Amino acid sequence: MNYTLTQIPERTVKPRQSGLTMVMDKGLSIRQVEDLLATSANYIDIVKLGWATSFVTPNLSEKLDVYRDAGIPVYFGGTLFEAFVVRNQFEDYQRLLDRYDMKYAEVSDGSIEMPQDVKCEYISKLAKQVTVLSEVGSKDEAKIIPPYKWIQLMQAELQAGAWKVIGEAREGGNVGLFRSSGEVRQGLVEEILTQVPFESIIWEAPQKSQQVWFVKLLGTNVNLGNIAPHEVIPLETIRLGLRGDTFTHFLDNAKQ
Amino acid sequence: MNYTLTQIPERTVKPRQSGLTMVMDKGLSIRQVEDLLATSANYIDIVKLGWATSFVTPNLSEKLDVYRDAGIPVYFGGTLFEAFVVRNQFEDYQRLLDRYDMKYAEVSDGSIEMPQDVKCEYISKLAKQVTVLSEVGSKDEAKIIPPYKWIQLMQAELQAGAWKVIGEAREGGNVGLFRSSGEVRQGLVEEILTQVPFESIIWEAPQKSQQVWFVKLLGTNVNLGNIAPHEVIPLETIRLGLRGDTFTHFLDNAKQ
Amino acid sequence: MNYTLTQIPERTVKPRQSGLTMVMDKGLSIRQVEDLLATSANYIDIVKLGWATSFVTPNLSEKLDVYRDAGIPVYFGGTLFEAFVVRNQFEDYQRLLDRYDMKYAEVSDGSIEMPQDVKCEYISKLAKQVTVLSEVGSKDEAKIIPPYKWIQLMQAELQAGAWKVIGEAREGGNVGLFRSSGEVRQGLVEEILTQVPFESIIWEAPQKSQQVWFVKLLGTNVNLGNIAPHEVIPLETIRLGLRGDTFTHFLDNAKQ
Repeated sequence: MNYTLTQIPERTVKPRQSGLTMVMDKGLSIRQVEDLLATSANYIDIVKLGWATSFVTPNLSEKLDVYRDAGIPVYFGGTLFEAFVVRNQFEDYQRLLDRYDMKYAEVSDGSIEMPQDVKCEYISKLAKQVTVLSEVGSKDEAKIIPPYKWIQLMQAELQAGAWKVIGEAREGGNVGLFRSSGEVRQGLVEEILTQVPFESIIWEAPQKSQQVWFVKLLGTNVNLGNIAPHEVIPLETIRLGLRGDTFTHFLDNAKQ
Repeated sequence: MNYTLTQIPERTVKPRQSGLTMVMDKGLSIRQVEDLLATSANYIDIVKLGWATSFVTPNLSEKLDVYRDAGIPVYFGGTLFEAFVVRNQFEDYQRLLDRYDMKYAEVSDGSIEMPQDVKCEYISKLAKQVTVLSEVGSKDEAKIIPPYKWIQLMQAELQAGAWKVIGEAREGGNVGLFRSSGEVRQGLVEEILTQVPFESIIWEAPQKSQQVWFVKLLGTNVNLGNIAPHEVIPLETIRLGLRGDTFTHFLDNAKQ
Repeated sequence: MNYTLTQIPERTVKPRQSGLTMVMDKGLSIRQVEDLLATSANYIDIVKLGWATSFVTPNLSEKLDVYRDAGIPVYFGGTLFEAFVVRNQFEDYQRLLDRYDMKYAEVSDGSIEMPQDVKCEYISKLAKQVTVLSEVGSKDEAKIIPPYKWIQLMQAELQAGAWKVIGEAREGGNVGLFRSSGEVRQGLVEEILTQVPFESIIWEAPQKSQQVWFVKLLGTNVNLGNIAPHEVIPLETIRLGLRGDTFTHFLDNAKQ
């Protein structure tokens, strides 16, 4: 840090198991990745190449190398996994992971219907090849999953071999964990946390108000995902109580 | 493409007459243009320097050269044309196009009142000098143009020599084709399409939901405009059915 | 300018006392700063490193040097001042300003309660060390300050030695001067202007509609703040009547 302030909450350090920041890269150029890493490499734990953007991104290998050289793992968004599965090309997907030397992969069912046991089977298979993140929640606004079901899904997928489960919110932050207005489904989150360890969950929280809400509820070292590249530094200040929204949250005595 | 997936809809290739993506550059630096082209050159058909941003942008010639070297045509936003016309400086505008060696120009009446025959005369004059894009629709939220009038304007302007007509939406996507909420005026679009060929229209669709709407209605190779630089890659995935929003749209059988 | 148009309102030139554009940098990399300056150096009068982002930004000295070499002063956001004060570390803050050779500083009470005389004392103390900007208005949506109080605070803080007072809006533009919808509290602004000279106020106006509103009310050379880096060029066109929103505002005769 550039200077010393008292009463700054303690952040975990890399490699983190909690306090993770997962960034969504939806088509950065190599130079833009370098710019991101120049300011934020220490605060980024893992990067998702959003949905199937990797299909149309030029210089994919070179870009993966830039992240790799910075020690930051990258994975393809779950929609890409689904795009292969829905086409009966799962083995192609496994070969693709090998070809690009991917160490992580996401399993999700946000855009397709998939029975739970089938999803867990995919998790188990991929877990033998890579570290698996598994996403729960639909991209469909109309599909409301009740809390007990979220819990059951998360537990089963962790059981099947997922390293972390991800609570779905999309890039916009308006589905899954959130109402279409972007408001957090607070009761849902609290109920999940009675049954699933908070270190095991990455909460997609692309909007600032959502990040603030999770930091206030779960503390500095909550795992947050779908963070836009230019919001990594702002998020870090939210985690540390150094932005207006969480300014007094970590202070013993907010009055002077 | 970086890997092979079945059932990917066929995209037109450059030089495209349909499936165009028009990007709005509202003040990129030369290096930012280079970053954009590094990821998206193949997906960008034409670039608009938004409204009169070219007036205050330094290094304009150098920037135009960067686009030119990538084989991507550039034009000044229609508001600049209007700024010259409203000041009785139309001949200056023609000289300006020559000075910067512009091959395309936009004619519009989004900010000024202009009788239709006068507008068509400008189109005819400029069509002798450059390739003309002509924009229909007001920037004024309060001004609602009925569908039959949209059709008549578009037909007359194509007749007068416009290469394409553009459906107005502004940078924000909240006027013209769209309600102030950003919602598409669906009946308007469908009625226009009964009379004007879809290859002749570029639909301004800056918001993702609008892009999705047009791709679902008009297919992969609909012409879309006012795309922000960092949304070109995401748009390409929407066109290809590789983002949640259009994921099942191009599949023969969405269930697995 | 790249070409000549008649009836362009006259802009002040650097060093400006009115017509200031204050940009918020919330974590740009050095190369991103260079990109910003390449297009916008002439239009940027002063840069704020948003809230306490400077705490977590790597290469802070080098970044300050890039701005310094371009002749653009930089200051730390007021929240950083408050973070030191609330921890009884004000002397540390003064040393910090010296260490980074800062010529400007902001005094604010957006996140903490501070009696007016205490705030004015801080302004007086810091005014001996640097040029002080002082911010009025709460970051708390629920805290409504009546107009007479805004006026009294602004006058007292200018009296205490502030160079400019800043009307609070946050990065989002939804508190202080603005309703939570982003709409301007017009009566408030007009009443303030009956008592406080307009050159002495920098209005935070991060949203386009807010910038337009201020330019229409107070003219080309109104002082505006919290401008996002990529909105500096667009703002300059709004100031000059070269964007749809202010297109007719500066014309003698808008009809042709």
